[in-house]
Amino acid sequence: MSKFWSPLTASLVPYVPGEQPKDKAYIKLNTNENPYPPSPRVIEAITAAANADLRLYPDPTCEGLVQAAAKYYGLSARQVFVGNGSDEILAFAFAAFFDPAKKILFPDITYSFYKVYAKLYGLQTELIPLDEQFNVQVDQFHSDNGGIIIPNPNAPTAQLISLEQIKMLLDNNPNQAVIIDEAYIDFGGQSAVQLIQQYPNLLVVQTLSKSRSLAGLRVGFAFGSEELIEGLNRIKNSFNSYTLDRLALAGAIASFEDEAYFKETTAKVIHTRERVADQLLALGFKVTESKANFVFISHPSIAAEGIFKQLREKGVLVRYFAQARIDEYLRVSIGTDDEMDAFVRAVQEIVGL
Amino acid sequence: MSKFWSPLTASLVPYVPGEQPKDKAYIKLNTNENPYPPSPRVIEAITAAANADLRLYPDPTCEGLVQAAAKYYGLSARQVFVGNGSDEILAFAFAAFFDPAKKILFPDITYSFYKVYAKLYGLQTELIPLDEQFNVQVDQFHSDNGGIIIPNPNAPTAQLISLEQIKMLLDNNPNQAVIIDEAYIDFGGQSAVQLIQQYPNLLVVQTLSKSRSLAGLRVGFAFGSEELIEGLNRIKNSFNSYTLDRLALAGAIASFEDEAYFKETTAKVIHTRERVADQLLALGFKVTESKANFVFISHPSIAAEGIFKQLREKGVLVRYFAQARIDEYLRVSIGTDDEMDAFVRAVQEIVGL
Repeated sequence: MSKFWSPLTASLVPYVPGEQPKDKAYIKLNTNENPYPPSPRVIEAITAAANADLRLYPDPTCEGLVQAAAKYYGLSARQVFVGNGSDEILAFAFAAFFDPAKKILFPDITYSFYKVYAKLYGLQTELIPLDEQFNVQVDQFHSDNGGIIIPNPNAPTAQLISLEQIKMLLDNNPNQAVIIDEAYIDFGGQSAVQLIQQYPNLLVVQTLSKSRSLAGLRVGFAFGSEELIEGLNRIKNSFNSYTLDRLALAGAIASFEDEAYFKETTAKVIHTRERVADQLLALGFKVTESKANFVFISHPSIAAEGIFKQLREKGVLVRYFAQARIDEYLRVSIGTDDEMDAFVRAVQEIVGL
Repeated sequence: MSKFWSPLTASLVPYVPGEQPKDKAYIKLNTNENPYPPSPRVIEAITAAANADLRLYPDPTCEGLVQAAAKYYGLSARQVFVGNGSDEILAFAFAAFFDPAKKILFPDITYSFYKVYAKLYGLQTELIPLDEQFNVQVDQFHSDNGGIIIPNPNAPTAQLISLEQIKMLLDNNPNQAVIIDEAYIDFGGQSAVQLIQQYPNLLVVQTLSKSRSLAGLRVGFAFGSEELIEGLNRIKNSFNSYTLDRLALAGAIASFEDEAYFKETTAKVIHTRERVADQLLALGFKVTESKANFVFISHPSIAAEGIFKQLREKGVLVRYFAQARIDEYLRVSIGTDDEMDAFVRAVQEIVGL
C-alpha cells in the first residue's frame, strides 16, 4: 500500500500469467503457445518493415490489418477492431459494453482474467456454474444481466459449445452485449463470426497468439456490428491512439496471406492432441473432449498437484490451478510430437505404468 | 449512440491524433516525429528477433528492457516501468494515482490527451493558466488537488520549466502524485529523473518516439519510487499482462546501446531548430523559446489558420489548434535541413517576403 495510490489501485487483485522460469530448459506445456513457428511470410514481412520508417507513427486506425481481417471473414472494415493482443481488447470491451448497474455473467470455471477486468471497472459479477461434465450451461445465463462473456472453447476445460447454443444465448439476451472469446476456436470449433450480421449485440474476440503462432507479436481482433466496433474505438481512442506498432501490423497482415501454412499447423496440433488424448485415456486419465490446443486431464488416484510437481522435476511444465472444482485437473498445452512423447513418458513413470 | 454501450462509452470525447493524409506526399511537420531514422543497431536487433520465438509470449515483466533503462539512468529495476508507448503509461498513471475525490491539475494549454484520460476515469480537472508568455506558473498549482501532471517541455508551447521549479512544485505537493511528462526532454532540457530518489511522489514519463526516432515501435517509460512503479504494475496486470511484443522489446533495448547516434541526431535536430527559429524571427514571426523538437510560432498580421491552409496546399503539413489563446499559433515539427528549407521558402511566399 502507498498513500499515492488511488482507491482503485489499492483494491485490485492483478492477473498472474503462467510461469516463465529461467532456471533451466523446460518442455513448456503451460501457456498454450503453438509449438510451430509462425509462417515464413510473417518473418519476411516483419524483416521488411524493420526500416527507417520506424521513426514515424503507425497508422492509428490500423487500416491495412483491419481490411486483411475483414476480407478473411467476408466482413466490412467497420465490423473489425484490432488491438494489442486479445487481452487488451477484452479490457476495452468490459469498459465499453458492460453495465455497472447489473451483474455480468460468465462461467464459474473460465479464463481467470475476467474477474480481474470486472474488479478494474467496478463491475458486479455472477458466476454461472458449469455442469458436472464441465459443459457451459447456456440456459442458465438468465437475461437479467449487464453483459455476458463466454470463451469458446472454454478454458481451461477445453470444451466447445455449438453455434446453436450461442444462438439460443443471443436470442435470450437481446438487450446487452454478449462476448464470445474465441482464443482457441481454430483447433476444431466453428466460429460465431458468421452470426454477427444477425445479432448486433454479439462481439467475437480472436487472437493471433494461438493458432497463428504469434503470441510474441501481441495482436488480437474483435468482430461485431458497427455500433459495437465504434464503442471499442471510443474507449481505445480515450486510452492510446497507437496500440499496434509497425512491425506487429506488418506481421499480422502477412499471417492472413498464408492459409496453407495455417491449415497445416493447426491440423498438426489437432492430430497430436487426439493421439495424446488416447494415450492418456489408456493410462487411466479422465480427458475432457478438447477442441483447443490443450487437454484438461485428471487421474482417479494420483493427485494433480503431485503430478504437476513431479513433471516439473522431470523438466516438463504444465498448468495446475489450486481452485475449487478443478484442483484435481491439469491443463497441458499441445507441443510437438516429440515434446508430447516426452510428456507421456514422464507421466507413465509417475503413474507407474 | 448504441444501446449496447456502457454509460461511460457514451460519455467519452476521444482524442484525435494529428492527421496522416494519404492523398499525396507531404513534408510532414505535424506530428513531432524525428526526421532521422532509428539507430542501425535497433534495426539489427529487430531483424534478429524476427524468428521462430515469436510463437512464444514475450516476458510479461519486460525485464531486459527495464534493466537497460535502469542502467542508463543509474536506477534500480524496481524504479522503472515500461509500456506500449508513453500514452499507455499515462493512461495507467491517471488510473493508478489520481484521486477522483479531488480535482487534478494541469496547464490550460497542454497535451490534449490529459482531458481525455480524465474523462475516461471520471476525474475532475482544474486547468492552471499559463502566463501571457506561455510559461507554466508553477506557484499556481495549489496543494488542494488529487494529482498534478505537467509536460516538460510543455506541448505545444515548447517551453521548459527548470528543475528548481519542479522541486518547488514537489515541495508544495508532498501528498499526491506529480507526473512530469518528458516526451521532449532530450532536445535541450534537464530530466527530473535525478529527483526521484528525493521525492517518492514524482513520476517521470518518457518515450522512445521522439528523441530515439521510434514512434513506430510504441515504447514508453516511467521512472519513480518503488511504490509508484508497483502501482503502475497493479493497473497494468489488471489490464493486459503482455503489453510489449518481442520485437519492440528487442529494438528498445538496442536503442540504449547506441549513445553516440542518439547524441548526434538530437544535436542535429537542436541545431536545425535554432537556425529555423532565427529565420522565422527574421520573417517577423513570434517564436517561443523551444527546448523541444518543434517550434511554436505566430505571425503578427497573418492569421495562423490561413498560413496552415496555404502550407498544406504547398505540400507542407504543420499543426493548427482551433483553441482559445493559441488559435493564432502553429506548431511546426523540426524536420531535416532540406525539409525545413522548403518550409521556410513556403512561409516566405505566404508572408510575401
